[in-house]
Amino acid sequence: MKRKEFRELASVDEARKIINSLQVLPEKEGLALENAHGKTLAEDIVTEINVPPFSRAVMDGYAVRAEDTYACSETEPVKLKLLGNIPAGSDVKFTVSREEAAEIATGAPIPEGADAVVMVEYTSEENGTVFIFRPVTVGENIMKEGSDILKGERVLRRGRKLGTREIGVLASIGKKEVPVLRLPVGIVSTGDELVRPGEMLASGKVYDANSYTLYAGVRECGALPLLYGIVKDDEKVMGKALETAVSECALILTSGSTSSGTGDMMYRLIDETGETLAHGINIKPGKPVVIGVIKDVPIIGLPGNPTSALMIFNEFVAPLLRKSLGAETGIRKTEAGIMGTDLRSEGRQQLLPVGMVRGQVYPADRGSGAITSLSGADGFIEIPPETEFIEAGTPVEVTLFGEVEKPDLLIAGGFCPGLDVLEDLSGLRFRTLYTGSTGGFSAIAARTADIAGINMPSKRPKGQYGVLPNGILYNIPTIESMGLSDVVLVKGYRREAGLLVRQDSPILGLEDLQGKRLINRNRGSGTRALLDIKIEELAGERRISKKEFTDSIPGYASGAKSEVAVCEAVLSGKTDAGVGIRDCAEKNNGLRFIKLAEEDYDFLIRKEILNTPEVKKFLQTLSSTEFASKIPAGLQVYERTGEIIPFE
Amino acid sequence: MKRKEFRELASVDEARKIINSLQVLPEKEGLALENAHGKTLAEDIVTEINVPPFSRAVMDGYAVRAEDTYACSETEPVKLKLLGNIPAGSDVKFTVSREEAAEIATGAPIPEGADAVVMVEYTSEENGTVFIFRPVTVGENIMKEGSDILKGERVLRRGRKLGTREIGVLASIGKKEVPVLRLPVGIVSTGDELVRPGEMLASGKVYDANSYTLYAGVRECGALPLLYGIVKDDEKVMGKALETAVSECALILTSGSTSSGTGDMMYRLIDETGETLAHGINIKPGKPVVIGVIKDVPIIGLPGNPTSALMIFNEFVAPLLRKSLGAETGIRKTEAGIMGTDLRSEGRQQLLPVGMVRGQVYPADRGSGAITSLSGADGFIEIPPETEFIEAGTPVEVTLFGEVEKPDLLIAGGFCPGLDVLEDLSGLRFRTLYTGSTGGFSAIAARTADIAGINMPSKRPKGQYGVLPNGILYNIPTIESMGLSDVVLVKGYRREAGLLVRQDSPILGLEDLQGKRLINRNRGSGTRALLDIKIEELAGERRISKKEFTDSIPGYASGAKSEVAVCEAVLSGKTDAGVGIRDCAEKNNGLRFIKLAEEDYDFLIRKEILNTPEVKKFLQTLSSTEFASKIPAGLQVYERTGEIIPFE
Repeated sequence: MKRKEFRELASVDEARKIINSLQVLPEKEGLALENAHGKTLAEDIVTEINVPPFSRAVMDGYAVRAEDTYACSETEPVKLKLLGNIPAGSDVKFTVSREEAAEIATGAPIPEGADAVVMVEYTSEENGTVFIFRPVTVGENIMKEGSDILKGERVLRRGRKLGTREIGVLASIGKKEVPVLRLPVGIVSTGDELVRPGEMLASGKVYDANSYTLYAGVRECGALPLLYGIVKDDEKVMGKALETAVSECALILTSGSTSSGTGDMMYRLIDETGETLAHGINIKPGKPVVIGVIKDVPIIGLPGNPTSALMIFNEFVAPLLRKSLGAETGIRKTEAGIMGTDLRSEGRQQLLPVGMVRGQVYPADRGSGAITSLSGADGFIEIPPETEFIEAGTPVEVTLFGEVEKPDLLIAGGFCPGLDVLEDLSGLRFRTLYTGSTGGFSAIAARTADIAGINMPSKRPKGQYGVLPNGILYNIPTIESMGLSDVVLVKGYRREAGLLVRQDSPILGLEDLQGKRLINRNRGSGTRALLDIKIEELAGERRISKKEFTDSIPGYASGAKSEVAVCEAVLSGKTDAGVGIRDCAEKNNGLRFIKLAEEDYDFLIRKEILNTPEVKKFLQTLSSTEFASKIPAGLQVYERTGEIIPFE
Repeated sequence: MKRKEFRELASVDEARKIINSLQVLPEKEGLALENAHGKTLAEDIVTEINVPPFSRAVMDGYAVRAEDTYACSETEPVKLKLLGNIPAGSDVKFTVSREEAAEIATGAPIPEGADAVVMVEYTSEENGTVFIFRPVTVGENIMKEGSDILKGERVLRRGRKLGTREIGVLASIGKKEVPVLRLPVGIVSTGDELVRPGEMLASGKVYDANSYTLYAGVRECGALPLLYGIVKDDEKVMGKALETAVSECALILTSGSTSSGTGDMMYRLIDETGETLAHGINIKPGKPVVIGVIKDVPIIGLPGNPTSALMIFNEFVAPLLRKSLGAETGIRKTEAGIMGTDLRSEGRQQLLPVGMVRGQVYPADRGSGAITSLSGADGFIEIPPETEFIEAGTPVEVTLFGEVEKPDLLIAGGFCPGLDVLEDLSGLRFRTLYTGSTGGFSAIAARTADIAGINMPSKRPKGQYGVLPNGILYNIPTIESMGLSDVVLVKGYRREAGLLVRQDSPILGLEDLQGKRLINRNRGSGTRALLDIKIEELAGERRISKKEFTDSIPGYASGAKSEVAVCEAVLSGKTDAGVGIRDCAEKNNGLRFIKLAEEDYDFLIRKEILNTPEVKKFLQTLSSTEFASKIPAGLQVYERTGEIIPFE
């Protein structure tokens, strides 16, 4: 039944062995000291000087012979003859004999004959005589020649990564140019669907992310990334690109064009011009990985999906780069966490992209099954093949995508510009997934979000809570109809919702919509639900059916995913009206806003996290006067803002 | 009694408050995406596209209407009419109706009408008909338009540090140029004693390390270091330099010229052209620190000593830079450790440079009192004013100087090229302090080293161990006379020691030394002790006193700190002969070696660490055949290599 098949997949251990056997050979280059930070030393550094290069004073004071001071005290100072002054940087000429002293500055060379420095605080000077009030011992306040670094000593070993301290050591032995390793890594993105960032995004195309994540990842390992751009899915073009990269690089990373469907192009190319060492690794998402060598230059083909590419890079390629640069161990950034949700695995070895919030780990796809969200992933966990289930609460180790800033709160629900202001003022970091209000309710039910931002109206409230003046009750009916418990509803703010039309449009209200093209919001959006209610009211007044009314509005069944899409459609003239909040019109000069209703944008929060510092901070900010004053136009806090309604 | 006095020192809290109040204002610049890694976002990034920009297939297969597949099974496939093929990157034209399917590649746009993708593995195709063997649900194998990032969403907030993941997100929304913060920090080194690395080091001068450590430190914080070079201790010159820096930078860091002795130049300059906010911080080594503002540009004067400058930078300046770049917390790299030795403090708040080895923390000066050794410090600890004593075993927190590679073993003692080979072959990292053999014995006694490399001969052995053929016993007599216990002596290797003369020198042996200029090694060196013994023997043979003999050798009382210094003195013709091991002559073509004796270079190890993995590895390497084959010329392992002699 299966038609196209990968050849036998390499096991993870086999793949590691193959990758470890690859010869990735760095070159050597000389870099100016200031540019060598973060690089790896290509040679042992042996110092040609002592540090310090001469015995020097570490305090301001007087260079003396210690034995002259042994008898002195605070009440009976010894008197020494002042020979002169030795400033820092001077080439000393005189010799200190018994009962003599020389004034000396910090860093100045100790004169011949002197063997200690008395701090200036314990001296006084008058007419060429120095009074010493405290004895010193031999060597006191002197840093001896070579006591830090000895001439001829190997101060730094080849392979050492140069940090701040090492840069300081190299400077203090006078190194101006430093031999460091140069490891050029070629990066090739493949795929006919790819477009370079900054270029026009034609239909069916996506921006190339892999070139840039791999560029950053390679740099983080201390190697030198070289971009070869986007190469079309064409064997000739690709072959040409690889040929160039092979001649210039120590390792080549490609991404895309390795799956079995579009054709095994990368694999065939490597097989024709070099040798394939592995075609697929038995770890999810390693199936499309190709490992090979062309003219002694190793080449690794990564998956096209950016999150998958970054995981495979971190797991297999980064350790290779670090090893090739002489690091003894891969400095993998890991962090311990606790699984925040139950997780079912496939019983196959797997790298799973995850997010981390307050120490809790959750799959980055938040249950959607699409392992494609780079923006939602802080790193990944490795799930062994024998694991079929990870219970919430299980400790796991997360390999981080570098030094990531992890979110404080996960927020799902309807789009609202008020959230950005809440984030800014609270100092918290939100990870927001705009799923529409319905998605927000579901995320709280599935425990995949901390907070849902919701504006779901209902004409027929079931519960005990009173209806609004306009007869519409927000959010509570949905909570009750979904049977959500152990949650609290926190009243948020009011938003003006309505129609968006062009400035010059003849449309003045709902009643003018018939015969006009409308762009509606997607199902599950609170704004769409509001329009439904309003249309139903109007149809009732006119004594026609709602369907009759909506059938007369072309596009009523459409479903834009975002308010921005709505605005664009109206502004461009593709459609005559859309639905949204007043903020949209404020941000787009060409739009006019026709208010239909005030809606409640509220927050649904899982009860168990209500007392975390993060949620407390969130609620404090929501109720703050600063938020009230900075909330965007068309949004407004009111007397119920911050009110908490529990649902047990 | 005290003559020059700092004005009242600011407390550490006051200093922090002053520094926190400084306005360090970054500029904004646009950087190409590939160069933005590690930078800080200057603006919120709002996406103008959905990611993915269209609903796309995440698997190779067939785009279908899910309902068409509900009834199929492995034995009873449904048959669908094949409409055509949709490769990735294509602009789809056709619509999938009931009982139709379109072949689709991973990443290709889902055609109109289709709502699921059947993986190719569960299909077969024949003459325009597709057989489906497994049902799919609506949305299966589809990543929906905007499901990762929604058009109009703020994807990254200003102030976010751009890591690999963020770079990927920016690429996937098509950003080519990124607005990031630019924070130019001027770096000025002051002091007449300073010379730029790479230049000639005249007498009394030292290389400028601070410019480079601060450069690296500023860069590590994400700011832009600008070097203004070395400025002479001259008010006019310095004033000019500061004026330029003030016009170009958001913050200026100077180092040096802030102590009371050389003159309060920096302080006076700031006072004249701006305002001094603090002159000295009440923390060791913060006394020379000056904080001020010139024309709204903050300026911080750091100590001249590189380790002190780096500590004050890490403690006070780095948090300021990070805060100015929008980081919410200073990402201080700290590590928990255990104090390895007792430590006496002065009852004054203090930053103490420390090294770390195997989790143990010890003062970087290893008891010498010179807090100047940058090469020996991995970071620093903060000691509160009320602490006068820290007992060995106390947990302490170390602020690391960045990502430092910490040593595995601390080794003191006599210089030997064999140690570098041991380090390379063992894979261990040594921190070596060449103190001479005597210093090695002392370091073991004081527990400030793990291992001492020693070659101390003695003519009059006290103990039970037999003497060498030449009547000289190595190391054991010193252990016994010092009364060292709880140590083991591990026999190392043999070294040929002798005289170093120029190739064309008439000197053929000790007997020719009279009337010739000699450069001897420093007191405490085993080589010097060997020469003493050999001279005494020869004097005995000639029936003259040792003193009579040595008096006839000019320079016998000299004491070069290193073998390299000996070689240089002989090669340059400044002296006629020196003492050292054969390796020196091998490395310097102009030198001839005259063997005097074979000496034992052994290792003294504290017993309590004998079973650590690091020492075990060290001993394994010492006894390995690889070491035997790679040991430098003039050194030789022999039958006793690796033999362990305990001293209880």
